Amino acid sequence: MNKRVVLASRPVGPVSESNFRVEEAPVPKPADGEVLVRNLWLSLDPYMRGRISAAKSYAKGVEIDEVMVGQTVGEVLESRHPKLKVGDMVLTQLGWQLYGATGEVMKIDTSRAPASYYLGLIGMPGMTAYFGLKELGQPKPGETVVVSAASGAVGSVVGQLAKLWGCKAIGVAGGPEKCAYVKQELGFDACLDYKAGNLREALKEACPKGVDVYFDNVGGEILDLLLTRMNLFGRIVVCGTISDYDSTDPYKVRNWRAILVNRLRIQGMIVFDWKDRYGEALKALGGYFAEGKLNYRESVVQGLENAPRGLIDLLGGRNFGKQLVKLG
Amino acid sequence: MNKRVVLASRPVGPVSESNFRVEEAPVPKPADGEVLVRNLWLSLDPYMRGRISAAKSYAKGVEIDEVMVGQTVGEVLESRHPKLKVGDMVLTQLGWQLYGATGEVMKIDTSRAPASYYLGLIGMPGMTAYFGLKELGQPKPGETVVVSAASGAVGSVVGQLAKLWGCKAIGVAGGPEKCAYVKQELGFDACLDYKAGNLREALKEACPKGVDVYFDNVGGEILDLLLTRMNLFGRIVVCGTISDYDSTDPYKVRNWRAILVNRLRIQGMIVFDWKDRYGEALKALGGYFAEGKLNYRESVVQGLENAPRGLIDLLGGRNFGKQLVKLG
Repeated sequence: MNKRVVLASRPVGPVSESNFRVEEAPVPKPADGEVLVRNLWLSLDPYMRGRISAAKSYAKGVEIDEVMVGQTVGEVLESRHPKLKVGDMVLTQLGWQLYGATGEVMKIDTSRAPASYYLGLIGMPGMTAYFGLKELGQPKPGETVVVSAASGAVGSVVGQLAKLWGCKAIGVAGGPEKCAYVKQELGFDACLDYKAGNLREALKEACPKGVDVYFDNVGGEILDLLLTRMNLFGRIVVCGTISDYDSTDPYKVRNWRAILVNRLRIQGMIVFDWKDRYGEALKALGGYFAEGKLNYRESVVQGLENAPRGLIDLLGGRNFGKQLVKLG
Repeated sequence: MNKRVVLASRPVGPVSESNFRVEEAPVPKPADGEVLVRNLWLSLDPYMRGRISAAKSYAKGVEIDEVMVGQTVGEVLESRHPKLKVGDMVLTQLGWQLYGATGEVMKIDTSRAPASYYLGLIGMPGMTAYFGLKELGQPKPGETVVVSAASGAVGSVVGQLAKLWGCKAIGVAGGPEKCAYVKQELGFDACLDYKAGNLREALKEACPKGVDVYFDNVGGEILDLLLTRMNLFGRIVVCGTISDYDSTDPYKVRNWRAILVNRLRIQGMIVFDWKDRYGEALKALGGYFAEGKLNYRESVVQGLENAPRGLIDLLGGRNFGKQLVKLG
């Protein structure tokens, strides 16, 4: 039997486990051109909050009683696909379930990196960091790059790329443990603890020459503060608004006028827009990883039935590094 | 004797006439390389509100007891400048006064357009419209361009350029008289009266295919509404926040997340950033004007002592077209 998690109801305010339901169903049969996959890893990502909200977002939402969306890596159990064989490891969009049949797969090379890394460092989060920073942030050597949710799957790569590209990298994260990790293990120049309560002063001190690129994963008050610290012609990459996801009333941005005063450029970042260039990003990220230049941490929840709790923890910032569910 | 208007005090909330003081002073003597100019026209512009505010903006503010800043056109009365002679008409930054001596002048050709037009249509406001729309808005033929303060010096040129460049142009202005002018005399496809109280519905109707470029001169609620109407990859040119200038508490923008959802690009626009290309803009605007393709209206206040009232009316939206003070 297959096991899967479906959306039972839409959250109003914070997500709760009661918004989900675990179901059993027959293991599907692959059609011609498809493979049957046993999922081994499920990726949990902040975007999932948007998919279960009633509000319109950049992608179609999950319907009630539908299987939750999500990227997975797994093993081919049965193949009716011309280029895949039993035992191949594949990246798919099968969602929150143990088995699935699909023709939309990408074969991955687990000799190059662990299978789960294709959900993070050299997957969507890594590519989000790569294109967002490179193409929208456009950092120049010597500039100051600030990234929020700095210990997360995207933020951790943003800061490390900023360093590799000759910039000063400043992280913002919640709590001393995450900040120590970002500074010591990821090699950022500094990491500021927004929970410590003096972020304004800490930012001034860490960025004495102002901020040239702010890669924003959180929105809200931290964004509003950063708007006041941006340099002339600074860039803000709007990648997420996680601080707002559980709010029924969105945060209202006070410092909009900074865009005019400092001629900022603010752009929204969704990785799908860059799909024609995924190969470039994967090559670059895989190369840095192979050279030992990218550090990475995973936060693993055991078992599909614990995926809702894992998502809730992720949205509450209680994870540490890339959030995964181990299904195998 | 010279007459001049100085800043007497900084406004808190709306500007009042008591924030200014009219003074007399000796007519200055031009130094070597300078001309003595009798100012004939003074330009009044929304940016002046920022210069008399205590808040940091993109340019240095006017100090208490200093002559108010402003662009002027006038006639050379005495020349110690190698390239200018008595009787030449010049564009200067002499501010709110009848006479001034300066070496920073640009000779203007009044056979090409009336002298006052160099303060508007083929001056800073026109160039703001030109570079803001062309370089930041980047409209493509067939796209929908919306501009607020559409009957004003900048907005009126934005919409006309949008039409010339093959776009649909929708204005937003205050009151039926301005809207009729924008539609009938400036040739916009439509102009929506924000005072009529149903702007959301009016925008949906006027822009059935959504909005690709929003040229924002006002900020505030109109901006927030437009954020919800932008198409995928839409652009917002942040050129002014006039709705906010008299407020002690800035408007807070609710729909920031639209930047992410629709991957918008938002940029601040200040014309000085384009000074290396002023010639290009003046040639283009002058050319369109000579061909009869740009319509234009001026709103004239008589006499320097009425300049404060003119600025107050401008900030309150009670002007109509480019606001000038006739000094001669």
